[in-house]
Amino acid sequence: MNNVQEESPRDQKKNRRRFQILEIARGIIAAKGLRSLKVRDVAVAAGCSVGSVYNEFGDFDGVILTVNRETVQALTVRLRGVPAEDPIRQLYGLAETYLEFFAEHANLLRSLFEHRMEDDRPYPDDILQMVMDAFALMHAPLERVLPAADDVKVALLSRTLFSAVHGIISLGLEERMVAVPPQMLRQQVEQFIDVHLAGLGIQPAR
Amino acid sequence: MNNVQEESPRDQKKNRRRFQILEIARGIIAAKGLRSLKVRDVAVAAGCSVGSVYNEFGDFDGVILTVNRETVQALTVRLRGVPAEDPIRQLYGLAETYLEFFAEHANLLRSLFEHRMEDDRPYPDDILQMVMDAFALMHAPLERVLPAADDVKVALLSRTLFSAVHGIISLGLEERMVAVPPQMLRQQVEQFIDVHLAGLGIQPAR
Repeated sequence: MNNVQEESPRDQKKNRRRFQILEIARGIIAAKGLRSLKVRDVAVAAGCSVGSVYNEFGDFDGVILTVNRETVQALTVRLRGVPAEDPIRQLYGLAETYLEFFAEHANLLRSLFEHRMEDDRPYPDDILQMVMDAFALMHAPLERVLPAADDVKVALLSRTLFSAVHGIISLGLEERMVAVPPQMLRQQVEQFIDVHLAGLGIQPAR
Repeated sequence: MNNVQEESPRDQKKNRRRFQILEIARGIIAAKGLRSLKVRDVAVAAGCSVGSVYNEFGDFDGVILTVNRETVQALTVRLRGVPAEDPIRQLYGLAETYLEFFAEHANLLRSLFEHRMEDDRPYPDDILQMVMDAFALMHAPLERVLPAADDVKVALLSRTLFSAVHGIISLGLEERMVAVPPQMLRQQVEQFIDVHLAGLGIQPAR
């Protein structure tokens, strides 16, 4: 019955409902933010009971985690698509791609960083690992531009640069706080990397 | 009756309740995060009705905004206390003080950045202005170390540096995401400023 080749009508219905619940939850988070997501609204929009939502995902955190998992997967695919021939261009490209993705999906990305589990339960390891792996994509180009630096230094620098770029973009796109126009924000991120690479003794060369 | 010198017993009771509601809300946010704050829990702990909480603060956002306002006030007092004799030391001091305050009050500071108003109502200007003013505290020392730079450039740099430091600290203290030990995080922030000042052509000199 669990054969993926031949889904039973019951499994098909279950999968459709699962997909539908996720689409509805993602739509609400994207439009109004994680705080506005209520299990009751999701159930009503999906035409099922609150109990069915819990049954399908274990609990409401399960719905949010699945949406967040898909967000970090989509982000990682985009970041992996940045050309890697020239490591310096790759660094700018990663930051620019992160900015584009963040601007397109601001509330979904915020949900990834803001979501806390109910009742202090531990956060699932797999999704943390996915976020860390996305962060680590700056590691390879940094190793190439700093061949003499040891691994620990490069790992720390990769984390620092990613976090700094994240901070500039997330506050820059904060519509409450005198948001920076996207084109200006792009220049701001580029200038930040210019200065930081210069400080590391690397010619920006763009 | 509204004379501040002579509060009526009714006003005294009202003020005590107001203070109590804020203390309870602040305690819940600090311990468990904004997402765990429920108006019902606050009312029960304060020994009053949910209606009384709404009466006192207009709505539940009013409670959160008041807690957040007090958080940014406390942060600003701490940042203003950083010695200003040497502008380079002041820059490091502002970042270090921000780190200390963030480490002590992580959930309260997150609430300041994460809180969205219900029903898409506009965010109050006064609290935005307070956050922008805290950001602008890096402006004066940057002007002194970059006397030739124009005002717009310094303002942008001040915003960029503050946002970058915020990103490094907020993700570094993210207990879900392989948090960085505070001492290491302090070194990470210092090294970040070292490199960035070097990139601006300024000798770190610490």
